[in-house]
Amino acid sequence: MVTLGLSTLLLTACGNLGSSSGTTTNTNEESASSGYQTTGQTNDSEYTGVIINGRYRTNKSRGVGVSQNSENLLNLKSFESGLTDISKEYFSTKDYVFQEGQTLSKSTVEDWLARKSSKNPDGLNPEDNGKNGENERNPMYVQQIEEQDYMKEDSKGNLSLAGITVGIGMNRKDYYQKEEYGATYVTNISKEEMEKQGKIAAAKVVARLRAKVGNDVPIVVAMYQQAEIDSLVGGSFYAYTEVKAGSSEITNWTDTDISSYVFPATSTKSVPNDNDEAAFESFKNKIQNFFPNLAGVTAQAKYKGKNLQGLKVTITTQFYSETEITSFTQYVAKAAKTYLPSGIPVDIQVKGSDGTVQSFLAKTAKDSSYYTHVFTSY
Amino acid sequence: MVTLGLSTLLLTACGNLGSSSGTTTNTNEESASSGYQTTGQTNDSEYTGVIINGRYRTNKSRGVGVSQNSENLLNLKSFESGLTDISKEYFSTKDYVFQEGQTLSKSTVEDWLARKSSKNPDGLNPEDNGKNGENERNPMYVQQIEEQDYMKEDSKGNLSLAGITVGIGMNRKDYYQKEEYGATYVTNISKEEMEKQGKIAAAKVVARLRAKVGNDVPIVVAMYQQAEIDSLVGGSFYAYTEVKAGSSEITNWTDTDISSYVFPATSTKSVPNDNDEAAFESFKNKIQNFFPNLAGVTAQAKYKGKNLQGLKVTITTQFYSETEITSFTQYVAKAAKTYLPSGIPVDIQVKGSDGTVQSFLAKTAKDSSYYTHVFTSY
Repeated sequence: MVTLGLSTLLLTACGNLGSSSGTTTNTNEESASSGYQTTGQTNDSEYTGVIINGRYRTNKSRGVGVSQNSENLLNLKSFESGLTDISKEYFSTKDYVFQEGQTLSKSTVEDWLARKSSKNPDGLNPEDNGKNGENERNPMYVQQIEEQDYMKEDSKGNLSLAGITVGIGMNRKDYYQKEEYGATYVTNISKEEMEKQGKIAAAKVVARLRAKVGNDVPIVVAMYQQAEIDSLVGGSFYAYTEVKAGSSEITNWTDTDISSYVFPATSTKSVPNDNDEAAFESFKNKIQNFFPNLAGVTAQAKYKGKNLQGLKVTITTQFYSETEITSFTQYVAKAAKTYLPSGIPVDIQVKGSDGTVQSFLAKTAKDSSYYTHVFTSY
Repeated sequence: MVTLGLSTLLLTACGNLGSSSGTTTNTNEESASSGYQTTGQTNDSEYTGVIINGRYRTNKSRGVGVSQNSENLLNLKSFESGLTDISKEYFSTKDYVFQEGQTLSKSTVEDWLARKSSKNPDGLNPEDNGKNGENERNPMYVQQIEEQDYMKEDSKGNLSLAGITVGIGMNRKDYYQKEEYGATYVTNISKEEMEKQGKIAAAKVVARLRAKVGNDVPIVVAMYQQAEIDSLVGGSFYAYTEVKAGSSEITNWTDTDISSYVFPATSTKSVPNDNDEAAFESFKNKIQNFFPNLAGVTAQAKYKGKNLQGLKVTITTQFYSETEITSFTQYVAKAAKTYLPSGIPVDIQVKGSDGTVQSFLAKTAKDSSYYTHVFTSY
């Protein structure tokens, strides 16, 4: 799925990049002899990340998410973005530094995501009952787990763990093969069953994490429903909770009302608000006939209840020249401003027929006009 | 080379988009009964483009550029960007509206670009002398021609032609096959010969264009040297001139000193300024070791003499998570600000190992910090 797209490259010495404001080269709690730096912050609403000795501190379970979501990587993308967003409600980007999870190792997460068995007592998924009928087998309920660490600098300038967020991705559909390389079957899981199994898994994960990290830090747990493998949007977080420092019990859950949808809506998959759909259709019609050849216009939409939270639009068309790309981008900016809902963040990617991004437009919730950029070449 | 990447799409009625400031729905000189609109302008430094009846007015020779540059599309991209830049010296983006060339049709341009023969007296390339040895045959000197029209609104609100720019792309290397699907051979053309043949071709093009458009508008001619087919940057414009309204003679040429280069420099291909190369190497080294897996870092650089005019950087690495992309992007912004030359426009594309753009950073010549955007998914 992921291959290393690099030709041979010369490795040369790597100096220290000056660290960002406030965090000059300090020693780190976990490796007191080495300094840490941060990635720097381009935007108040993003966390700075931890760098040790000039290298990014990667997740201890790096790569598990990619393999667990290989059938639809959108589930990984939306899972991680959403998990970071929930974390921001507890750990402000101003006071906390983001570190990829360092507690749960790759083998730990892999064991937890596997079935329970005599060899794997920690498996969060049920034992194999020997059956392979869609409705008779025990499905895999838990699909992915990811830890995020939130760090604070202490009075001595050391960076120490100050909070953990853990996301748990749950299946509504468990895809499986009856034989290797065979046809794909699916076991459906009801919403109620998913939520019930999610609570059971979350309780175990919190107790185990608490045992590993001690009593000093809060643990935020966020439950995610995986999207189907052919979905054009990822899944969404349906509940979350904070387990305060000192506790290892989940007492209550906060339900979210967030879901992702695809525009244009279809007869079988509608969107929560008809006005948004009408606005998108107006925009699409405006764009589609700009060139003699038709443009494809689709979007991912994020909703909280019936309220649109953001749009990510993709436009694909065939360009015959750079000047066409520039003109089209200007036209899209005008049409987007006229037709698309205001007050929400909107990204628009303009792709050529070979799928490469030719230009890009974006606005934040506050902006009224679009930032535009055409990818040109010297 | 270019295929239509669209699935079946519903065509629906297309209304009129409100036109941009100053140009309310006017009638057009060439089709007096139909209104024209413009694409709108996102940026003072770009032209607005012409829309007729809701559709972009495409080039009359649309597609010729793509086929003439199919071996290296960078030659088309840099040709068209550069041609627009030269046009801006004569036709301000404030006063003129851009229109894709409407004078030279596809068959005209194709005839001009072919060899001269009894059947094709207008061919700008020399007759076939029947020989196919690299140094004996007559090479193809002229590779591409493109017309751009610059329009002004008259007192009646009609849009009329106010200037033409024509670009002529010349070969230093003419690639050819001795037999269909056979090996590729190359005839080298000296710089002097290219320039000489370019002047001959330009004189003919101007005279023919003048005959077609009449005496009222200036014609700007710009000469471009095509890059080699395996080049990672396009070619560059080496000379240009303006033929004033009423004249059809080229009296003198303005030489440019603009060229494109690739970073990192190699032993066989150096760059004009060692300081820029050192700055780029520092940046590259800083970036390359951020992850355990190496990142590839290359750039296109535009020079005027020894002065760097702009950089387009491409970074390719393997990401395992969205959080890695966000952290890396912030790190790149900091490193770019620290190491890359200031006072020039810089674009940076961050790509995953599958080649898709994951994030993007850009600054204009005036900016000190970078605009950053991570392409996320719902």
